[in-house]
Amino acid sequence: MTELASHQRTRTHDQELRARAKRVIPNGMTGHLSVGALPPEYPQFYSRGEGARVWDVDGNSYVDMMCSFGPNILGYGHPKVEAAIAAQHGKGNTLSGPGECMVELAELLVERVAHAEWGIFAKNGTDATSLCLSIARATTGRSAVVTAAGAYHGWAGWSNLKPDGVTDEERSVVYPYTFNDLASVERAIHEAGADNVAAVFVSPFKHDAGHDEELVDPAFAAGVRALCDTHGAALIIDEVRTGFRLHHGGAWEPLGVEPDLSAWSKAIANGQPLGVALGNAAFLSGAERIFATGSFWYQAVPMAAAIATIHALRDEDAIASMVKAGQQFRDGIEQQSRVHGIAVNQTGPVQMPNLSFPGDVGYAKAFAFCGAAVENGAILHPRHNWFLSAAHTEDDIERALIATDAGFRAVHAQFGSD
Amino acid sequence: MTELASHQRTRTHDQELRARAKRVIPNGMTGHLSVGALPPEYPQFYSRGEGARVWDVDGNSYVDMMCSFGPNILGYGHPKVEAAIAAQHGKGNTLSGPGECMVELAELLVERVAHAEWGIFAKNGTDATSLCLSIARATTGRSAVVTAAGAYHGWAGWSNLKPDGVTDEERSVVYPYTFNDLASVERAIHEAGADNVAAVFVSPFKHDAGHDEELVDPAFAAGVRALCDTHGAALIIDEVRTGFRLHHGGAWEPLGVEPDLSAWSKAIANGQPLGVALGNAAFLSGAERIFATGSFWYQAVPMAAAIATIHALRDEDAIASMVKAGQQFRDGIEQQSRVHGIAVNQTGPVQMPNLSFPGDVGYAKAFAFCGAAVENGAILHPRHNWFLSAAHTEDDIERALIATDAGFRAVHAQFGSD
Repeated sequence: MTELASHQRTRTHDQELRARAKRVIPNGMTGHLSVGALPPEYPQFYSRGEGARVWDVDGNSYVDMMCSFGPNILGYGHPKVEAAIAAQHGKGNTLSGPGECMVELAELLVERVAHAEWGIFAKNGTDATSLCLSIARATTGRSAVVTAAGAYHGWAGWSNLKPDGVTDEERSVVYPYTFNDLASVERAIHEAGADNVAAVFVSPFKHDAGHDEELVDPAFAAGVRALCDTHGAALIIDEVRTGFRLHHGGAWEPLGVEPDLSAWSKAIANGQPLGVALGNAAFLSGAERIFATGSFWYQAVPMAAAIATIHALRDEDAIASMVKAGQQFRDGIEQQSRVHGIAVNQTGPVQMPNLSFPGDVGYAKAFAFCGAAVENGAILHPRHNWFLSAAHTEDDIERALIATDAGFRAVHAQFGSD
Repeated sequence: MTELASHQRTRTHDQELRARAKRVIPNGMTGHLSVGALPPEYPQFYSRGEGARVWDVDGNSYVDMMCSFGPNILGYGHPKVEAAIAAQHGKGNTLSGPGECMVELAELLVERVAHAEWGIFAKNGTDATSLCLSIARATTGRSAVVTAAGAYHGWAGWSNLKPDGVTDEERSVVYPYTFNDLASVERAIHEAGADNVAAVFVSPFKHDAGHDEELVDPAFAAGVRALCDTHGAALIIDEVRTGFRLHHGGAWEPLGVEPDLSAWSKAIANGQPLGVALGNAAFLSGAERIFATGSFWYQAVPMAAAIATIHALRDEDAIASMVKAGQQFRDGIEQQSRVHGIAVNQTGPVQMPNLSFPGDVGYAKAFAFCGAAVENGAILHPRHNWFLSAAHTEDDIERALIATDAGFRAVHAQFGSD
């Protein structure tokens, strides 16, 4: 591996925009794309994306290992998706009713996702998870929800991980369990009142920010399904982050475990805004009774983009490409870890990897590592899993590994070897 | 006015799609764009939009008096907005951070909307209203919310008008008042506990579905502002439906009444998906503490479209165009009402008009009227206000009046004259 000559990035425009943004946007930026709490090397503002690369507003380019935190799965500007967007946009997008493509997309999802017999479209992940919960509540006539402690299922009151702006009343019906600990799910159900649990939410695997990832124990998956059946609660799987990266259908299908409801968004349309709640026949009655809508939920362009994306994912064997690129990245980091004598934990599926440093108090090593990586041409994240896309070429990964090598050197300079 | 020869619309493709949709989508369609409860003449699926006209999937064209329920404000495919979309889309849309246009748009909104000192971007109206409520709660440390009975502020539990899927806990902190009845607001505040009210929500005018519209009494607006000041609650104005149709800034600015927080979406980007919560300095602290986000909230294309839309609205004097077209439509309907001897109530601003028939039990006359209007080339709604756009030409309105004339004839045939 060759080392890039250290280059001086221009940051002027990003800094100017940050100063302007601070005057008109709380903290200068809100939500998960804010770099306010990240190392100072991060750009906040981007100007362009192509394939697996992004450019910041000062023209610096990076291999993007975050993929917009998930939406980019086939590559920025994927030709087939772009063609579908252009064709539909020329006809119409937000109209006084949906387009034909809504029906086609619903049929495609019902065909691809084993448990799904119907779908309700929306816009973001929080829409999709909240739709699932409302449908479970309407179907069961119950209110309580059992969720894994620390798992993020959106910013709505019942799932927000920050207390600010959330009422005690919203929290009062939420009962936590520990991922992969079946007894804790059973305890949570009994705390809620076994006859009062509308739904148990699960993630396909544990991918909580700031923690190592943990794959699901198949016995846990089967056990949660059985508990939901026993107690008449909906099993809801949150595929917002995982959807289309692990499997062309539902993430637990290889385990033979089907949820009642599932929530999807992010990668479903390769960056076009779309979410969907999918469900089985047992939960159709609630889905038919709730009122839920949004001014932009039925736009035709994102649905046309989703159809093109879902077809391209399978036609182009995109998951295999992501796994190959992800494995190359993991192997390269593993080798660098040995060379630099700095231990790392690499966890989770290689196409949605997480990296941490053992005993890293306050993420200090992760911050040093990621700051240097950004400075050297790769966008990573010190506290959140990364995302591979099918557009990450061998060359992109080699380029990203130059950046992580700089990351290890920065950790070594600040903290020494292990 | 000449009468069009009655034409036989082809409905085959729409009917086929409805049959397919029923198998994969609850009720065949969900949300506010469902025509399941409307007269059978309505098309459910659309293929194209241009200016103020839309085409259904069978190729029938209509003057669209619903404007996608608000988003279409300059006309479908407005050249300046399309140019902004194309330019930004060619560079990037959903990236790993926002674009420069986010800052530019926030500055523009702060300049145009008097009370606004900052903005948080989101995607739909419900995002924007729920953001405002969360910010009010985080700033005040209180939970209760006072809203007008029957007013729709989104599908979230605290504001959903249908009980299905909503918990008692969510409803328990919501206290209703009657629009334009200041004493009822004061009673609601005291019922909630004067020290526990985070926010009072208001609509710029009453536009509840199924009811005549009612303009705000300026004394009511000033009185609600004073009550919020007295009790330390946020005054939140919901501009989702009204935004950019009544005024280039906030709807109550001509009254000299400023809210603390305001929610915007629908027309802000002429059909591109965007919402925003705007606020003043007093509520910045909560805005900086809450966590709220969405995978698609920071897309660059809708923000570029919003900048182009907001400029075009003022540069092209769009509100005046909407008022002119709306007045032509109202005058034409008034004349037809007299000719046919059928009384109507036309209420609200002419650019967001509502039509009802006095004593119309179960909206039977409205359904007959709107069904015949659809059959004759205009999309109206029997239970919801209509929306004018700046693209509605004199010719479009004349064409729509041919459809409403057929509507009056249908009412006459079924119910006789008044």
